[in-house]
Amino acid sequence: MKRIDIKALFSAPPADGTTVTVCGWAKTVRDSKNIGFIELSDGTCFKNLQIVFEAGKLENYKDVAKAGVGTSMQVVGRVVLTPGAKQPLEINADSVELLDVCPSDYPLQKKRHSVEFLRTMPHLRPRTNTFAAAFRVRSTAAYAIHKFFQENGFVYVHTPLITGSDCEGAGEMFRVTTLDLNNLPRTEDGKVDFSQDFFGRSTNLTVSGQLEGEAMALAFGKIYTFGPTFRAENSNTPRHAAEFWMIEPEMAFADLTDYMDNAEAMVKYVIGYVLEHCPDEMAFFNQFFDKGLLERLNALVNAEFARVSYTDAVELLKEHNDQFQYKVEWGVDLQTEHERYLTEQIFKKPVFVTDYPKEIKSFYMRQNEDGKTVAAADMLVPGVGELIGGSQREERYDLLKARMEELGMDCTDYTWYMDLRRFGSAKHAGYGLGFERLIMYLTGIPNIRDVLPFPRTAGGF
Amino acid sequence: MKRIDIKALFSAPPADGTTVTVCGWAKTVRDSKNIGFIELSDGTCFKNLQIVFEAGKLENYKDVAKAGVGTSMQVVGRVVLTPGAKQPLEINADSVELLDVCPSDYPLQKKRHSVEFLRTMPHLRPRTNTFAAAFRVRSTAAYAIHKFFQENGFVYVHTPLITGSDCEGAGEMFRVTTLDLNNLPRTEDGKVDFSQDFFGRSTNLTVSGQLEGEAMALAFGKIYTFGPTFRAENSNTPRHAAEFWMIEPEMAFADLTDYMDNAEAMVKYVIGYVLEHCPDEMAFFNQFFDKGLLERLNALVNAEFARVSYTDAVELLKEHNDQFQYKVEWGVDLQTEHERYLTEQIFKKPVFVTDYPKEIKSFYMRQNEDGKTVAAADMLVPGVGELIGGSQREERYDLLKARMEELGMDCTDYTWYMDLRRFGSAKHAGYGLGFERLIMYLTGIPNIRDVLPFPRTAGGF
Repeated sequence: MKRIDIKALFSAPPADGTTVTVCGWAKTVRDSKNIGFIELSDGTCFKNLQIVFEAGKLENYKDVAKAGVGTSMQVVGRVVLTPGAKQPLEINADSVELLDVCPSDYPLQKKRHSVEFLRTMPHLRPRTNTFAAAFRVRSTAAYAIHKFFQENGFVYVHTPLITGSDCEGAGEMFRVTTLDLNNLPRTEDGKVDFSQDFFGRSTNLTVSGQLEGEAMALAFGKIYTFGPTFRAENSNTPRHAAEFWMIEPEMAFADLTDYMDNAEAMVKYVIGYVLEHCPDEMAFFNQFFDKGLLERLNALVNAEFARVSYTDAVELLKEHNDQFQYKVEWGVDLQTEHERYLTEQIFKKPVFVTDYPKEIKSFYMRQNEDGKTVAAADMLVPGVGELIGGSQREERYDLLKARMEELGMDCTDYTWYMDLRRFGSAKHAGYGLGFERLIMYLTGIPNIRDVLPFPRTAGGF
Repeated sequence: MKRIDIKALFSAPPADGTTVTVCGWAKTVRDSKNIGFIELSDGTCFKNLQIVFEAGKLENYKDVAKAGVGTSMQVVGRVVLTPGAKQPLEINADSVELLDVCPSDYPLQKKRHSVEFLRTMPHLRPRTNTFAAAFRVRSTAAYAIHKFFQENGFVYVHTPLITGSDCEGAGEMFRVTTLDLNNLPRTEDGKVDFSQDFFGRSTNLTVSGQLEGEAMALAFGKIYTFGPTFRAENSNTPRHAAEFWMIEPEMAFADLTDYMDNAEAMVKYVIGYVLEHCPDEMAFFNQFFDKGLLERLNALVNAEFARVSYTDAVELLKEHNDQFQYKVEWGVDLQTEHERYLTEQIFKKPVFVTDYPKEIKSFYMRQNEDGKTVAAADMLVPGVGELIGGSQREERYDLLKARMEELGMDCTDYTWYMDLRRFGSAKHAGYGLGFERLIMYLTGIPNIRDVLPFPRTAGGF
């Protein structure tokens, strides 16, 4: 008989007495002399299925009763509807076939384990409640992101991971090479000869797909990327990973307001989708990680995000400089303490801060008329600070070139990028969302290592 | 007035006479003395919107008439419904604002360009019909894949890109490092000291997420990956890229038949979805790339795929050995010529070939009772050959260990993978689909460089 997913059993319970086959792993096994109970998981949903097994019916009752946590099994039994109980049904077993009895050195015994301990076993930790919930939320949120952009006419773009070295931030990049490090080819002047490397040049792992995304947006109108991104920063913190996933939407004929409208709608959609589709997981996080989680997320979904200029935000924050480690004044980059104060204390809801000083922002951001600021905006949310950063891009060739030269950049490295400003240039805007930061925000999990299935962070893996 | 996407105009035409604002790029501009026509694209759909502009209405008539291909513009005008014409409507312009006049050195002039020429400008080629269609099909197919798996209860998993070096196929991997190649740290015996590298070890880019996917499937029951994969093979062919995207689903409590059922349903779903959602793009490919494309894809969606054992397939093929460059006999790996003959000539539809000799397949595949073959299956499709490869995995610890030792592998590199066979092992099966190969199959585009937005292939980029 074909087995049925536990998720399907719960979401559309068969009639009382129906015989079904389920497979899964024992989360707990309890027994008395003649009757026993198994909490069975097959991974398809957060809740376990209760299996009742009886000595009078099972020849292998004793073997089942002493099967350890983690044992895989196939159960054939009858559905017993349990109206009023926590679960809508349980199974009364006619047979329990032990597929693989889990030995006693299985690390995931019933007691609670620290996340630090579980990090040492990324291949097993998704079997625990915390990580099962985290990675299902991750999957659901990823799908919600695709759904939002596809339904709004955005084209999904795969920007390249292996890119040519450029000078900007090269110190924070991973090199990609097939050269034999024990026998490096050299040029006449003794330098490493990268013309003999795989691509005939020096290459590294991308830190952003934005520039390529702009090229695609100026063809498709609206695009988004969703792919891995790399930073070789030696930052051993709970918020930094060397390999993480980014979403980078880009819209042509769009300005800063269009970006903010889209980003606000996207975040609300994704959070709403996860709340709707992962109620058990989210209840778990609300109970065990952050008692205010659901309240905060529901408030966000229903709030109209505030918008304030950097200049006005600085004025508002300066009044509270006595409460900050780093004092605020016009021109400084906002720290997390300031961002959180703005969104949590002053606005009490998500807020976009707009029009930052150009000195603290990137070369490609559109210069405002005031000559001092650029059309950039960061989305700040309670509990986290910056969730999204974005900007209108400088679409005017001459201004872009002047800014790049001012910053000492070599324009010849960016010929193709500047071409986009020569051939049918159009105003455009976009933003970047760090996917792991979103999942941390959604779950209340404080360490990025615990929202990545196989984290790659400074200090090894 | 808020601008409207051309896609929205076509899919839900406003009433005749409605005033609308559209932005986009001129694909062609034609004019006579007093009236002109612009084919306008904003990238949101394959079809262009016809703009009619008249000297009597536009002060800048002459400027518009001589605006070059690629010029960006904003048009305000009235909808003129055109029942019976190729497009449902056109716009009669009240104003045409030229945003950025495209200069005459714009490489994408009206004449037809070779794909080889267009490959030299990946930032501009998505503006051409071929690449606009290819990359929109790519986006739509990617979404269909997510939709299929999510709606069937699969959890989307991000497996790591940076992995520890293992011995298998190390020659085909890209090294990832932050060591200074001009000043490499050495161990006492003069070798490169990778303990000083970023992760404290030697690392490379992944060639497959399958092993990690298995760990996740044994927690969630059903998972899929969809991410970048790398091969440093120096193969300068139309079918090989150094960086490409793979889908690797994995199912617990599943055998070879379950994999084949799922893969068949998935491929039919994705192709059906693209046919439904990209009719203009698919008609374009059918007309310009492969006249039999739509017929072949429609046949596939409606066919029941055949299944034949490798042993039987070899018997069938041997009868036609006179037609093959490489002769077939039991034990050889099937070449594309054999695969295509099977699916095109013998079965005349897609076919799974099952139970290959273990010598030509991977260590992790489940050994059959006959001692000679493994529970592997490849999906072959007309016009291409192998589209998908998959297998039931060896879930028996002792047999897996024996096979690895037989192959001279170091089991200590795979402790975590073998753990999956110690702690609640369960039969499981999965497969791999090269995303670019699917897109080539869907579009008829013969070169992988033309289905990747920014291809990374041997020979540079």
